[in-house]
Amino acid sequence: MFYSDFIYETGFVRTRINIECMTIRKLAEELNLSVGTISKALKDSYEISTETKRRVHEMAVRLNYIPNPYASSLRKRKSKTIGVVVPEISDSFFSLAINGIESVARTKGYHVLIYLTHEDVLREEAILNDFKSGRVDGVLLSVTKDTREYLHINALQENAMPVVLFDRVCSEVDTAKVMTNDFEMGYVAASHLAERGCTKIAYLATSPNLAITNERMAGYKKALEDYCIAAGGHAILCPGSDTANLQAIEELLDHPSRPDGVIASVEKLAMPVYNACSRLGLTIPADIKLVGFCNLETAAFLNPSLTTITQPAYEMGERAAQLLFRSLEKNSFMLAEQNVVITSQLNIRASTGGA
Amino acid sequence: MFYSDFIYETGFVRTRINIECMTIRKLAEELNLSVGTISKALKDSYEISTETKRRVHEMAVRLNYIPNPYASSLRKRKSKTIGVVVPEISDSFFSLAINGIESVARTKGYHVLIYLTHEDVLREEAILNDFKSGRVDGVLLSVTKDTREYLHINALQENAMPVVLFDRVCSEVDTAKVMTNDFEMGYVAASHLAERGCTKIAYLATSPNLAITNERMAGYKKALEDYCIAAGGHAILCPGSDTANLQAIEELLDHPSRPDGVIASVEKLAMPVYNACSRLGLTIPADIKLVGFCNLETAAFLNPSLTTITQPAYEMGERAAQLLFRSLEKNSFMLAEQNVVITSQLNIRASTGGA
Repeated sequence: MFYSDFIYETGFVRTRINIECMTIRKLAEELNLSVGTISKALKDSYEISTETKRRVHEMAVRLNYIPNPYASSLRKRKSKTIGVVVPEISDSFFSLAINGIESVARTKGYHVLIYLTHEDVLREEAILNDFKSGRVDGVLLSVTKDTREYLHINALQENAMPVVLFDRVCSEVDTAKVMTNDFEMGYVAASHLAERGCTKIAYLATSPNLAITNERMAGYKKALEDYCIAAGGHAILCPGSDTANLQAIEELLDHPSRPDGVIASVEKLAMPVYNACSRLGLTIPADIKLVGFCNLETAAFLNPSLTTITQPAYEMGERAAQLLFRSLEKNSFMLAEQNVVITSQLNIRASTGGA
Repeated sequence: MFYSDFIYETGFVRTRINIECMTIRKLAEELNLSVGTISKALKDSYEISTETKRRVHEMAVRLNYIPNPYASSLRKRKSKTIGVVVPEISDSFFSLAINGIESVARTKGYHVLIYLTHEDVLREEAILNDFKSGRVDGVLLSVTKDTREYLHINALQENAMPVVLFDRVCSEVDTAKVMTNDFEMGYVAASHLAERGCTKIAYLATSPNLAITNERMAGYKKALEDYCIAAGGHAILCPGSDTANLQAIEELLDHPSRPDGVIASVEKLAMPVYNACSRLGLTIPADIKLVGFCNLETAAFLNPSLTTITQPAYEMGERAAQLLFRSLEKNSFMLAEQNVVITSQLNIRASTGGA
């Protein structure tokens, strides 16, 4: 038998509560816990289980209650808002990273504002200038592919506004950076293709200015050397727009001495390779083996499924936000000393011949 | 021969200009056009070509110059910012819609702030309450799946803050709504499956409260009646979390009298169907035919490629933003009279047997 209509599954019944009169006592009532337990949970006491702490924090956030331990410093902040500045959100890396950032901001009772630069450095400058008005208390930034001067970032820092860089960082800026192991993963991607028999490995990128692009490419080049196939390897800069990228990739793959292995160093370059192969009658992985730096949920269901370098996007966002809040909560916390590297993962699938 | 290293392709050389001293004359110099041409282009004169207008607007925005015709009313606005409130950005509908919104905001010299509710109605209320502080001049909203009371939306309107609803609208709120033809596309999806021979068609959704869900489901039910297969059709409400959705779909498809056709009424339910089929050893489209309401760029490259109802996401965002700015520019513009419906498209692919 089938269900005859909608089956309801609700996690809980939502109760409306007047936010104004919310106190720690209310929180206790709401969760059917003692005031002491709530208080200890909010102070992160070892006496309280992780699960209870989670419940307390979740309810506190739902009820717009900023727990005291955080509130002491955060309460002095005006905007109760952090700004997240990213190039785009159509890349699944950024949408996952933003989810990680929000998971932290929520426990602090903070709003998250998302700004998109669309890779335009003038927009990035305008957005950061706008922050000087006090619209936000702190900033999480992943720079555009053309950001080569940093006065707009420095200006914020001089205004005592904490800035944390994540993923697309710039070594020239003196602040916390949350990255993944790009050099190593460029090396891993190229080595994997070499081990699968590729002798002409192309590296596709969209910008010569980004640190992550160059780190990944340096790793790729090192692998070509180590596997003695440097002569057949080439780095191609795709022009940027979807149509132009596809055309550049088609030209590359339509060439008589086309590559037999391709690394798409950013997510948006993976599908154009599938598209170009389909248009040119080339088969993945028989004719071309492909590795993509990519967090697409669909990777496992593609035809063929895509071997990926999967970045710890959610964790990177989470970690970057944690650092920003530590700085907001404690002025003496030195952001510049924080350099966090969270490792990515190679997921071998059919596009390189399968596991 | 391969390229030996990065090939540079830049659209133009970026020139740094002091934004302060920017005038219409500067704009003319910059574009090598006369002041008259610039002025006419900014006034949207029929004498000026679309291409020239595009160039003028683009440069005006890059240089942070708000053209006069817009500025007259917009200049009085304080925040130069609109707020976009959406449930999530991991759904490609919303990331495309936001790109559409930003394309309009950019020509008006406006910032766009993106807020995520994560389907939590209390967060939606908190965000809208926060807007009363004057943080934004207007709001574009797609409600959570649990939004059933509208006081927080009405309160903004009473504060003279224009609100435009898009995609996830509520008929009870008296304002502009930008939708797609959900009823019709529910009908089209089910009819397509019926015409491909399906006799037991399931409809998967995640909420019984959303207007779009119910419209699509009503269209689906009407099609089942028209094709005399109502007895084999069932609407299933998936619980919401990724794990729980997958489990609900597996239970459905593992049943002896499982459906032979499935409609995933939201994007996030399409991949779990692929996943469940793969785990249960069922083949798409031989055992199960699948249509997804989905804007995924990867749809054409899935295994098998996915038949989709593709929504005009970018256009819906663009249109919603245009209506909001008309209201900001002209107080007498009646938002409540605006009901825009932009049609979606059926793209037939291998998951229903191919074109």
